[in-house]
Amino acid sequence: MKLATIRTVDGATRAVRVQGETLVDLGLADVGELLARPDWAEHAARTEGPAVQAVGYAPVVPRPGKIICVGLNYRKHILEMGRELPQYPTLFAKYPEALIGAYDEIQLPPESDQVDWEAELAIVIGKTVRRGADAADDAIAGFAVLNDVTMRDWQYRSHMWLQGKTWEASTPFGPYLVTPDALPGGTRPSLTLTGTVDGEVVQQADTSDLVFDPVALVRYISTILTLNPGDVIASGTPGGVGHARKPPRYLAAGSVLTTEITGLGRSEAKAVAETVA
Amino acid sequence: MKLATIRTVDGATRAVRVQGETLVDLGLADVGELLARPDWAEHAARTEGPAVQAVGYAPVVPRPGKIICVGLNYRKHILEMGRELPQYPTLFAKYPEALIGAYDEIQLPPESDQVDWEAELAIVIGKTVRRGADAADDAIAGFAVLNDVTMRDWQYRSHMWLQGKTWEASTPFGPYLVTPDALPGGTRPSLTLTGTVDGEVVQQADTSDLVFDPVALVRYISTILTLNPGDVIASGTPGGVGHARKPPRYLAAGSVLTTEITGLGRSEAKAVAETVA
Repeated sequence: MKLATIRTVDGATRAVRVQGETLVDLGLADVGELLARPDWAEHAARTEGPAVQAVGYAPVVPRPGKIICVGLNYRKHILEMGRELPQYPTLFAKYPEALIGAYDEIQLPPESDQVDWEAELAIVIGKTVRRGADAADDAIAGFAVLNDVTMRDWQYRSHMWLQGKTWEASTPFGPYLVTPDALPGGTRPSLTLTGTVDGEVVQQADTSDLVFDPVALVRYISTILTLNPGDVIASGTPGGVGHARKPPRYLAAGSVLTTEITGLGRSEAKAVAETVA
Repeated sequence: MKLATIRTVDGATRAVRVQGETLVDLGLADVGELLARPDWAEHAARTEGPAVQAVGYAPVVPRPGKIICVGLNYRKHILEMGRELPQYPTLFAKYPEALIGAYDEIQLPPESDQVDWEAELAIVIGKTVRRGADAADDAIAGFAVLNDVTMRDWQYRSHMWLQGKTWEASTPFGPYLVTPDALPGGTRPSLTLTGTVDGEVVQQADTSDLVFDPVALVRYISTILTLNPGDVIASGTPGGVGHARKPPRYLAAGSVLTTEITGLGRSEAKAVAETVA
């Protein structure tokens, strides 16, 4: 099952089930609101609402209660850098203000000239879970495409990465969420993740290469605090980011960043110079 | 003006104006809902609602959209450690699940045996602000007591501190918010911050010793993303944390942690061993 938050011509959003070319109206404002219903899966599967017309995609969950990001999580990339595999995941945050829809424009703020890409598999929570050793699997509503676009100059201003990770309107999220039953590998999906800049493949990996897979991440994070429906975990990026290139390469005004995961669709976001009043 | 979110006997919360011993009902569920009103200051000052009885304090803003924490921000402490003053603030996150009321119990999870204290001045946002060079001052609704209780073993599991900073039900926040007009120094307040453990003073500093003062923090953070009413900035802690002592000292079951700021009241939170089902 594919679920999306679409924008309608009247400027509102709607949660829809994506069924081929048809968007079935689920009677709710967005996928976050949908996931807050304990019966969301049945509701989404059974609703035979009217079809709606979309003028675009909003972030799959427009206002997650939490966005938790994971660093250093692709095995092959860690090993090829000569590092040891980590014992614990590296976690940091992003705030909802950073999110944009899959085809929205990435704002390049005048304060940064090192805006970089990080193609990622996002995990969306569908059920409240704390210390979910056994419940972790069942707590995953599905997966979506996300690009953890990062202002490298700000990321490295201090030891904590947060300030490079949460710039307003920088992070494409979507187009849609796909439930685990529709994916090879289910809640530990094996999918090809590909990032391109202006048509050139810059990142590519299989999501089965994650050191901490989605179920392990939900177990680990839910030890610390409760995960709620609509919460998002961005599971980390493989090699190929612009900052590590020689010479380094960043997004420029007009750059088109695509992020694609087999089965999860693709985002295609154009970077534009932000207009500051 | 003092504003609080109190708990009532029926298990609900109410936003109140604290007027001596009287709690004036502002007709809203909590201070977050109050601050979301553009006329919150007038509404809070003028309401002559009925007095309500509190059975306790909830976190001042129970569900902030964002909690942004600042590290390494007390000048004297940085200099006495032989470090240079930072050029940029160090920022990291905490999620709302961490917050507890001023007199609630701090949960000591079985997964950590290094639960430490960090007495802090919290800044609460009262007005939407982005790139608030001039608007930063006006965007501050007020200040409150917060203790950024930290699981040191988890903080240092990776390079990013987040996982030690956001344990469920660990962070006393309140009892109330005080507007800048009622404080010496206004939006750059000069107040004595004191943390005690079991009656012994372990941290003490003046909030005027902040390297990045509240107005500077709002300016800096709002460059990155929009700050909204109810968002919280925890402005950093001075020296005296338990982890830096020789031998180190941590909270134990039964420890009483108080955090007091002159003019802002005090929290008094007892640490208890968490019961895990």
